[in-house]
Amino acid sequence: MNTFTFAQDEPFSLESGATISPVTLTYETYGQLNSDKSNAILICHALTGSAHAAGYHSEEDDKPGWWDECIGPNKAFDTNRFFIICSNVLGGCYGSSGPTEIDPATQQPYGLNFPVVTIGDMVNCQVQLIDHLGIERLLCVAGGSMGGMQVLAWAAHHANRTHAAIPIATTAHHSPMQIAFSEVGRQAIYADPRWQQGDYHTSAEKPDAGLAVARMVGHITYLSEESMDQKFGRRLRGREKYGYEFKTEFEVESYLKYNGSKFTQRFDANSYLYITKAMDYFDLAQPSGSLAASLLPAEHIKYLVISFTSDWLYPSYHSKELVRALHAVGADVSYLDIESSWGHDAFLLEVDTMTSLLQSFMERLVREHSIDISPDNPQKSQDNNAF
Amino acid sequence: MNTFTFAQDEPFSLESGATISPVTLTYETYGQLNSDKSNAILICHALTGSAHAAGYHSEEDDKPGWWDECIGPNKAFDTNRFFIICSNVLGGCYGSSGPTEIDPATQQPYGLNFPVVTIGDMVNCQVQLIDHLGIERLLCVAGGSMGGMQVLAWAAHHANRTHAAIPIATTAHHSPMQIAFSEVGRQAIYADPRWQQGDYHTSAEKPDAGLAVARMVGHITYLSEESMDQKFGRRLRGREKYGYEFKTEFEVESYLKYNGSKFTQRFDANSYLYITKAMDYFDLAQPSGSLAASLLPAEHIKYLVISFTSDWLYPSYHSKELVRALHAVGADVSYLDIESSWGHDAFLLEVDTMTSLLQSFMERLVREHSIDISPDNPQKSQDNNAF
Repeated sequence: MNTFTFAQDEPFSLESGATISPVTLTYETYGQLNSDKSNAILICHALTGSAHAAGYHSEEDDKPGWWDECIGPNKAFDTNRFFIICSNVLGGCYGSSGPTEIDPATQQPYGLNFPVVTIGDMVNCQVQLIDHLGIERLLCVAGGSMGGMQVLAWAAHHANRTHAAIPIATTAHHSPMQIAFSEVGRQAIYADPRWQQGDYHTSAEKPDAGLAVARMVGHITYLSEESMDQKFGRRLRGREKYGYEFKTEFEVESYLKYNGSKFTQRFDANSYLYITKAMDYFDLAQPSGSLAASLLPAEHIKYLVISFTSDWLYPSYHSKELVRALHAVGADVSYLDIESSWGHDAFLLEVDTMTSLLQSFMERLVREHSIDISPDNPQKSQDNNAF
Repeated sequence: MNTFTFAQDEPFSLESGATISPVTLTYETYGQLNSDKSNAILICHALTGSAHAAGYHSEEDDKPGWWDECIGPNKAFDTNRFFIICSNVLGGCYGSSGPTEIDPATQQPYGLNFPVVTIGDMVNCQVQLIDHLGIERLLCVAGGSMGGMQVLAWAAHHANRTHAAIPIATTAHHSPMQIAFSEVGRQAIYADPRWQQGDYHTSAEKPDAGLAVARMVGHITYLSEESMDQKFGRRLRGREKYGYEFKTEFEVESYLKYNGSKFTQRFDANSYLYITKAMDYFDLAQPSGSLAASLLPAEHIKYLVISFTSDWLYPSYHSKELVRALHAVGADVSYLDIESSWGHDAFLLEVDTMTSLLQSFMERLVREHSIDISPDNPQKSQDNNAF
C-alpha cells in the first residue's frame, strides 16, 4: 500500500465549495509502467472497496484483493502488459482522507466534520495521483458499480486524460430507488444510539448494529431472486424444521446476519454515510440537464459499457440510456448486456465472459494507440507492489 | 369494530403445537347477510392492515378503511349485494390476540411470550369466526399480498368452506428474497436497544427507530422503479440545490422518513416480527413438496388470480407458478397479469381494472351458485356496521 499526500499548502477545493488540507490517498499498483508511461490503467472501486484490488499483502491474508480474479498475469487486466493503479476513494476508511482520519485542525478524527464529498471530488483526487505518477494520459479507466460512476466522471470531466472508459454495472445518475436504498442504510445507522451523531470514535462501542443492518439491505440488492434461489432457496440452517422462535432459521437469514456482522469489523459507519451520499448526488446530466451534452467533451474516448441482465440495483436500462447518449455524441461504444443470474454481484463473478471482453477491448486499445507493452520496456524506476 | 372471543375453555392449537386461550379476533362487516347466508365474502388483510377495511369509523377519521376503494355500494365488492367480512389477523395489533394483548397468565402484555403463529393459524381463527357467524360456505375469500397467502391457505386447507378464491399480488411460498427483506426489517427492530428483547411495553420509549427503518425497507419494496421515477425522480425537497450535509434532501428520502415515522404511531414492533415470521414460514407446497398436491383438495374452487407487471416483491412469475399448479389439478382458473407501473402497491391502486375484473367474476359466482342477492332478502337479525 502506497500513500500520496497533496494539498498541504494550497487547500483542495471540493464541489461543495468546502476545502480539505492536506489530502491523502492510499493506492496500490500492479505490473510495470512502460518508459513512455502509456500503459497505465486506473481501476476505481465500489462502495466498500479499498486500494487493495489484487494479490495478497501477506501470507496471513485469507483473501486476495477485491478484483483479484480480473487483475494479474494473463488476466482481464494483464499485469504482464499493463500498469494497474487502484486508489482508495476520498471519504473512504482504508487510509485515504475521510471521517476516520485525523483532522489537523483538532488532532481528533474528523467524524462528521469531514466535508461531504462527491464522485467528482473522488475523481479530482485521482487526477492529482495520476499527475504525481507522471502519467499524462491513462490507457483506460475501469470500474463497476460506484467505480463505474467514477469512470464516467473521468470521461466527462477529464476527457483528455484517458483513451478509454469501461463503466460496468453502473448508471449515469442515481435513480430514486437507488437513493432510497442508500437512505435506508443511512437511517439504520442514524437510528443506532451508539452512532452519537457521528461522534463515536472515542466510545467503547461503535454503531455496529446499525451499520450491519445497512449492509444487510445492501447485500439483498447485490443479489438477484434467481441467485438467492440457487444459493439459499428456502433451506433452513442447521435444523430440520421450523423452530417457531425469533432466531436465525433460514440460510438466507444466516447469510445476511454473517455478512452484516463481518462488515462492521472492516468498515466505518460514517464512511458509509459519506460514500452513499456521494453516490446519491451523482447525476452526470447536471448541470445542463442533458446526459449527451455532459458527454460531448468525451466523444473521442472509446467506451466499453457492460451491464448484467439480472442486476436490478443498476438495471441494464441505465446502461442502455448511457449508450444512447454516447451514440448521440458520436462516441465509439461497445456495449454488452451479459446474460447472468448473479444480479449486481455479477461484475465480480462473471469473470470468464468479462475477461474475454476486456482482453479484446484492451488488445484494440494497444493496437490503435500503438502502446509499447514489450517486456523489455518497463520504466526502470517505478516503485510498485510485488504481485 | 366487533369482537369475537373463542377458545376460553378448550385452548386453541397452533401449527407449532403451542396453544392460546382465549383467542380474540376483531372484525368488521359491511352489507347484509342474506337469509341463507350464501353471500358472504371474507377479505384478508396484508402485513400491517386491520379489520377496518372500508368506510369511516367517525367523522374525525381522515382516512377510510384500507380497501375502501374496492368495498362499498357498487364497488368491486358490492355491499348492496354481498356481506363483506374482514378480521384482524392473529398476531396483529389492532385488537386481535397478539403480542400487545394481555396474557391472562400474567396480566401483562404477551410481548414475546405470545406464541409464533403461521398463516395457517390466522386462517384457522377466521374459520372459527365464520362458524360463529353461522356461515357454512363463503362465496369467496379475497386478499392481496399476505392477504393472498391467507386466501391460498383457505383454499388448500378449508376447501369446502368457500366457492371461490381471489389471491392477488401474492405467492404460494415466500422466496428467499422475500424472507431476506422480512429479516432485514426484523434485524432493524432487534438492533434498536429500546426493543429490549421485546419487553418494552412498560418503558417510556418504544423501538420506534428500528420499526421505522423496517417500514422504510418495506416501502421501497412496495414501489417500482418506474413509480419512484414518477413520484419523486431526483427532485429535492424544499431546496433548490444540494446541501452537502446529512439531512433529508431528496423527495424520496422525505417520503421514506415520513412514512417510517408515521408507521410507528400505528403499529407495534413485536407484531411486525410475528407477522413477517408467519409470512416467511408460508410454503403451500409443504409438507408434500408439491404445490399441485397441496391444491388437489381445492380443485373444485373457482380462482381469480391477479398479479401486476411491475410488482417485484411478489413478481408475476410467482402467480404464474400458482396458476400452473392449479391447471395441473384441473381447477377453474382465471388469471390476469395487470399492466401497471405501481409495483406491489398496485393491488391498492389499480382500482378501475380490478373493479371490472372482480365484478364480472362475482357476477359469474352469483349466477353459477344461484346466490340470492335481491335487496328484499337480507338476514334480519344480522348486526353489522353502518357503512
